[in-house]
Amino acid sequence: MRIVIIGGVAGGMSAATRARRLLPEAEIVVVERSGHVSFANCGLPYYVGGVIEQRSSLLLQTPQSLAARFGLDVRVGHEVVGVDASERTVEVRELASGASTTMAYDALVLSPGATPVRPPIPGIERALTLRDIEDTDALAAAIAGAGRAVVIGGGFIGVELAENLRHAGLSVDLVEATEQVLAPLDPEMASPVHARMREHGVGLHLRSQVVAIDAEGVELHDGRRLDADLVVAAIGVRPDTRLATLAGLMVGERGGIVVDEHGRTSDPHIYAVGDAVEKSDAHDGSAVLVPLANTANLQGRRVADVIAGRPSSMRPVQGTAIVGVFGLQVATTGWNEKRLRASGRPYRAIHTHPLDHAGYFPGAATMSLKLLVDPESDAILGAQGVGSAGVDKRLDVIATAMRGGLRARELADLELSYAPQFGSAKDAVNMLGYVDENLADEVTHSIQWHELPAALAGGATLIDVRSASEHAAGAIPGAVLLPVDELRSRLGDVTSNDVIVHCAVGVRGHVAAMMLAAPGRRVRNLDGGYKTWAAGTGE
Amino acid sequence: MRIVIIGGVAGGMSAATRARRLLPEAEIVVVERSGHVSFANCGLPYYVGGVIEQRSSLLLQTPQSLAARFGLDVRVGHEVVGVDASERTVEVRELASGASTTMAYDALVLSPGATPVRPPIPGIERALTLRDIEDTDALAAAIAGAGRAVVIGGGFIGVELAENLRHAGLSVDLVEATEQVLAPLDPEMASPVHARMREHGVGLHLRSQVVAIDAEGVELHDGRRLDADLVVAAIGVRPDTRLATLAGLMVGERGGIVVDEHGRTSDPHIYAVGDAVEKSDAHDGSAVLVPLANTANLQGRRVADVIAGRPSSMRPVQGTAIVGVFGLQVATTGWNEKRLRASGRPYRAIHTHPLDHAGYFPGAATMSLKLLVDPESDAILGAQGVGSAGVDKRLDVIATAMRGGLRARELADLELSYAPQFGSAKDAVNMLGYVDENLADEVTHSIQWHELPAALAGGATLIDVRSASEHAAGAIPGAVLLPVDELRSRLGDVTSNDVIVHCAVGVRGHVAAMMLAAPGRRVRNLDGGYKTWAAGTGE
Ligand SMILES: Cc1cc2nc3c(=O)[nH]c(=O)nc-3n(C[C@H](O)[C@H](O)[C@H](O)COP(=O)(O)OP(=O)(O)OC[C@H]3O[C@@H](n4cnc5c(N)ncnc54)[C@H](O)[C@@H]3O)c2cc1C
Ligand SMILES: Cc1cc2nc3c(=O)[nH]c(=O)nc-3n(C[C@H](O)[C@H](O)[C@H](O)COP(=O)(O)OP(=O)(O)OC[C@H]3O[C@@H](n4cnc5c(N)ncnc54)[C@H](O)[C@@H]3O)c2cc1C
Ligand SMILES: CC(C)(COP(=O)(O)OP(=O)(O)OC[C@H]1O[C@@H](n2cnc3c(N)ncnc32)[C@H](O)[C@@H]1OP(=O)(O)O)[C@@H](O)C(=O)NCCC(=O)NCCS
Ligand SMILES: CC(C)(COP(=O)(O)OP(=O)(O)OC[C@H]1O[C@@H](n2cnc3c(N)ncnc32)[C@H](O)[C@@H]1OP(=O)(O)O)[C@@H](O)C(=O)NCCC(=O)NCCS
Repeated sequence: MRIVIIGGVAGGMSAATRARRLLPEAEIVVVERSGHVSFANCGLPYYVGGVIEQRSSLLLQTPQSLAARFGLDVRVGHEVVGVDASERTVEVRELASGASTTMAYDALVLSPGATPVRPPIPGIERALTLRDIEDTDALAAAIAGAGRAVVIGGGFIGVELAENLRHAGLSVDLVEATEQVLAPLDPEMASPVHARMREHGVGLHLRSQVVAIDAEGVELHDGRRLDADLVVAAIGVRPDTRLATLAGLMVGERGGIVVDEHGRTSDPHIYAVGDAVEKSDAHDGSAVLVPLANTANLQGRRVADVIAGRPSSMRPVQGTAIVGVFGLQVATTGWNEKRLRASGRPYRAIHTHPLDHAGYFPGAATMSLKLLVDPESDAILGAQGVGSAGVDKRLDVIATAMRGGLRARELADLELSYAPQFGSAKDAVNMLGYVDENLADEVTHSIQWHELPAALAGGATLIDVRSASEHAAGAIPGAVLLPVDELRSRLGDVTSNDVIVHCAVGVRGHVAAMMLAAPGRRVRNLDGGYKTWAAGTGE
Repeated sequence: MRIVIIGGVAGGMSAATRARRLLPEAEIVVVERSGHVSFANCGLPYYVGGVIEQRSSLLLQTPQSLAARFGLDVRVGHEVVGVDASERTVEVRELASGASTTMAYDALVLSPGATPVRPPIPGIERALTLRDIEDTDALAAAIAGAGRAVVIGGGFIGVELAENLRHAGLSVDLVEATEQVLAPLDPEMASPVHARMREHGVGLHLRSQVVAIDAEGVELHDGRRLDADLVVAAIGVRPDTRLATLAGLMVGERGGIVVDEHGRTSDPHIYAVGDAVEKSDAHDGSAVLVPLANTANLQGRRVADVIAGRPSSMRPVQGTAIVGVFGLQVATTGWNEKRLRASGRPYRAIHTHPLDHAGYFPGAATMSLKLLVDPESDAILGAQGVGSAGVDKRLDVIATAMRGGLRARELADLELSYAPQFGSAKDAVNMLGYVDENLADEVTHSIQWHELPAALAGGATLIDVRSASEHAAGAIPGAVLLPVDELRSRLGDVTSNDVIVHCAVGVRGHVAAMMLAAPGRRVRNLDGGYKTWAAGTGE
């Protein structure tokens, strides 16, 4: 049996090693166009920035080590340029010599990954991209002696590059067409990321398009120019379906190779995994593109199982992702509010700003969490987190709860490890469950930052229950100060039957809202308090 | 309606604040014997050690702040000395004056916590204990000028105290009766904790008992003496059932107050929560004592719900706990192997030693994880982790997976957040799932460190597949060196039909085991590799 694998990195090499373990006798050939296999794509920006110092750290395996340990036939510098599905052969070109050979397969695995999007801007050929070791070497060479860089695109890789180019000592401008970086975040969650990037000297040009690239820099849609010795395009990636198309395989509407739950393409002898394929969304089963390493590695392993005849199937994807941005942890899982709104799916949003660990223990830092919940079933639809510590843990716990089918209110009951340096007796995740429970059971009601203008226009009274000094330091227009600790004795001061309370983050607002509840009166607590409002409105 | 709450800290005060939010009209009285409420018990050791610098940080609320915000009637320095369940009254003594008053209640909540165990050793009255602010002040006063301390007991608090007394500059001996500190850990997982404590200068006296305490120090069972200016007893705690007994309430075999799932004691108007009560074990429903803050706080809130007539019930407990030990994170959830073995329940154990984040990104640290699995159902029975970083996250994820009813093999499919500074593309938790899947499906077989002697005596061949230099630096007696990268070409060298392979942690051993599989041959991979073997055997 001969298994041919195209692409020798995350999905491809995970398939190869697992296939070897399961099939000691199989001939396993891995064809890789670039000069390296098993490299750490996710580390490339950090090598560019000098955080990872040794280039060799990026190379987890070599063709030699893979031959010795796994008996794999790994051919770097070789590209598969044709697939004949009916004959079950691939055409392999050695890039150095240009020589082509035809190779038969019993099973073919496509793991060609994704290709960076290159919009048809004049001068786009001047822009560097970052996908493999060769790109990395080119970028590293380009920054030597460079003073100014422009990064086009504020996705995960663009943001990582901006940070790393700053780290390498360059001036950096980042140009992003939409109103925010990191599209998986909702806008009020992206706001602290913008602030952090600006604090670290990144020139952030939102709602801006690069219309031309030339030797001196880039030109923006509004005529502004940004000087640059170096332009990097990080506008996103799209599944590499060239071979799939050549082979006549089905490609889906999202632009990825269509596979069944066993990773099989429309040809029964050809499998595909990783960034190149469409995955099944965990919420609604729709086809989605989630170009992330965890899924690519897992799919590689699973497809080897299938080829070896073991029962195994691909799980749907939640899209759990994380990125570091100048010391901020930014993580998401599931659907965001933008997507829920666009799909017309009902949801309830919860914002909190808890500490990563007990406030009385040194070094506690505030994070912002957002939970999106199905108001009917109380299912967790998605979560987002931004903060300097402990965000990865909270998002992983929530992602796991989602996978386990826990309802949002059941987060309250999770028994999470607590000592003061690691968490809180009521952990941030528990607290989300408490807040959800109160909303689900209509113990209390909340209002979102973006709903506030309409509510105030409709005659609601807004009460700021923070302290006078907090109010003085920054207040929501129209808010009346009435500190929570005075409220109990001044309940009579509140005469409105449509009251919105707010504090800094929501906790005191909750106490006040419960105090103000009265028959015939509508009381709502501003979800996430002043902090979320300020992030959402850009104050 | 009058609610009287006994104990004004984790469970009691959480009940009081929640009750106030739900019942604006109720009279809520909190009676607390000590001089403080709402203090951070879990921070006390760190204040003693000077890590938490301000004593005021420990006091999260005061009677005044709780009156202002919550309208609570909080009486510190008052002890409930009697309960008349038939009359529904408590007798409250003001400790300063000795004056007693009788107070009626409609609902009574007991949250008196636990009391430190004080074994009847001659001189035990010299030993300090740590439970409240007064104890903390006494301990802080005692260490001022002291040079040597003996801590009796290696539980969570004893270990935290040992660290903090070192931090405060004292010489510290810790005396523990069993063969290990931190009883929730299995011995091979406690071993790195012992090493870390010794590295930091703690004199660790395992399998040792203090038989007498005098002005100069302590005497051990074997006649040895340890000098001490200061002796702290941290031998464990037991539920404070004094009032429950006075009130004629049912107390269980484990020594805690018996409550139903609504927190109700055997008297329908008396509720009890927190360290004082027996909880229901998440695996088998048996009564257990789990004196931890997360559960105490949650139960306090839940019991307020019940009193307010809301549907609410106490969840069973997994016993998720964590402690920091000189920079090590030590965490556990569920049952350990000792308990499984004692109960006769079948289980499968898995040990891994993964990195907390990608090895190519600076600062990655190895942790040790242990997973215990039901071999029939593949249910996760428990987990333990020890390491300098990322252990809290992995244990919280596993605890959540347990709550969500995920099977161990489903850990492989978890979609956890990955960027190189936060995790691995195949996260440590995913990897536990992979290993479990291989064992569950009999793709491979493992052997535990403690089963090795019998297997070798029975004629098995042990092959060390690490490199020659690793073998030279420390090897298992009887192991033959055959590095994995040579094995493929030297398969003929292995003639035995009962082969055990091992590497450093299990990964190369797995590759080797798959390579050596042959009809009629038994091949087992040493679970956790040399590292677990060395930890287990004390090498
Ligand atoms: C800079 C960067 C940072 C990233 N950071 C993260 C992160 O922090 N977290 C995360 O989860 N994910 C991250 N990713 C994404 C992650 O690396 C991918 O999801 C993952 O590598 C996809 O695996 P794959 O096997 O599908 O494709 P790849 O790993 O990209 O491998 C595809 C390989 O196929 C080869 N190939 C393509 N066509 C042919 C052909 N015709 N013949 C021969 N060879 C061919 C390519 O040369 C390439 O090496 C990052 C990616 C990049 C580029
Ligand atoms: C030093 C230390 C460190 C700890 N570290 C951790 C940790 O890191 N993580 C963790 O999860 N847990 C930790 N704990 C345990 C945690 O603090 C307890 O689980 C939790 O506080 C229990 O809450 P409770 O309400 O049941 O009792 P407590 O919080 O102990 O409160 C009981 C209160 O009741 C009062 N009381 C008792 N009897 C009477 C009476 N008759 N009349 C009036 N008042 C009375 C007592 O004075 C006491 O203040 C630690 C505990 C200590 C002591
Ligand atoms: C590393 C790479 C070659 C895959 O190699 P691999 O041998 O499959 O993976 P690992 O070294 O992680 O080992 C995993 C195997 O060891 C097993 N294992 C792990 N810990 C174990 C332990 N303690 N005991 C026993 N087995 C263990 C796992 O079960 C798994 O084997 P299985 O698949 O047969 O179940 C491939 O993933 C790769 O090229 N990665 C780099 C590129 C990349 O991922 N880029 C994107 C992210 S930067
Ligand atoms: C602090 C203490 C007094 C309890 O006070 P509390 O008001 O119940 O608790 P918190 O301040 O944590 O607030 C939690 C409340 O705010 C709500 N909340 C939290 N974040 C919110 C947000 N962003 N928006 C709206 N509501 C929010 C929660 O839902 C909860 O209200 P609920 O119980 O009505 O659902 C009590 O836990 C205590 O004394 N703790 C110290 C002692 C201790 O725990 N020791 C052991 C560990 S060291």
